[in-house]
Amino acid sequence: MRVLGIDPGTAACGYGIVRERNGRVKLVEHGWWKTPSRSRPERRLKTIFDGVGELIEEYEPDAVALEESFVGVDARTALSVGQARGAILVAAASLGIECAEYPPSSVKQAVCGYGRAEKAQVQRMVMAILGLRTPPTPQHASDALAVAICHALAPPLLKAAAG
Amino acid sequence: MRVLGIDPGTAACGYGIVRERNGRVKLVEHGWWKTPSRSRPERRLKTIFDGVGELIEEYEPDAVALEESFVGVDARTALSVGQARGAILVAAASLGIECAEYPPSSVKQAVCGYGRAEKAQVQRMVMAILGLRTPPTPQHASDALAVAICHALAPPLLKAAAG
Repeated sequence: MRVLGIDPGTAACGYGIVRERNGRVKLVEHGWWKTPSRSRPERRLKTIFDGVGELIEEYEPDAVALEESFVGVDARTALSVGQARGAILVAAASLGIECAEYPPSSVKQAVCGYGRAEKAQVQRMVMAILGLRTPPTPQHASDALAVAICHALAPPLLKAAAG
Repeated sequence: MRVLGIDPGTAACGYGIVRERNGRVKLVEHGWWKTPSRSRPERRLKTIFDGVGELIEEYEPDAVALEESFVGVDARTALSVGQARGAILVAAASLGIECAEYPPSSVKQAVCGYGRAEKAQVQRMVMAILGLRTPPTPQHASDALAVAICHALAPPLLKAAAG
């Protein structure tokens, strides 16, 4: 299966696509969108919406995976992240792709075997799992690859619960 | 000008369309979308995205107006409202319609002449301004009409600042 993982944000939104076969995961693509703060909010969100749509059309993932995180953020940040998530979820739904959400602890557990791993550990494990020589950059793309790996390797029941 | 006001929410999302001419505002349409909590988040957001798109195509508003509110809500609520806003903003941007955002105090000031008016006062003034015999229901639709009236009657400089 192919999974498109996304680390949602309006200013910087990371993405990473992985392919899983027989429990092994390979990197397909990763990157990020940046949108200028001087642009109107609806145009910034449309950049993300269009970007997600183009990735889905090009790579035909079976699912879009997101981290569900609102812990430790203020309402203003949560609203901004929520807007980016809305753009992403609608892009996926418009193309008939299912979305899965995982709490940060599940992503860390899946990638590091430990639900309270540090960000740097997650990045190193993403590199190791995908057999990369250098860490995937930027951090947003690495975070997106982590949630994509989490979904790709999740047991079927956990996958269903994340939908 | 015609304005589509929206009161964003995932479970219940209100909308109201008004037409302004020579400083007088008339009701064109109002209503709301409800989405069942048992549905997948991306499908619920797509209902809103499609609904906004259909209203824009049918009524051809010059702008979409939203209240910007994250004060007094927790991060989880802000994330959920943000997702609905993302779906709405992307729907507007996809059809080339500009969006404007007003803080709650500006909406109350525009409708009631007092920035700290109560919800019930706002609903009564919406009814009076639009010349209705009964208050527009549900509350979400009334709130959507209030922000639509705010944008329709806003002086040009305030309109530009809200974009």
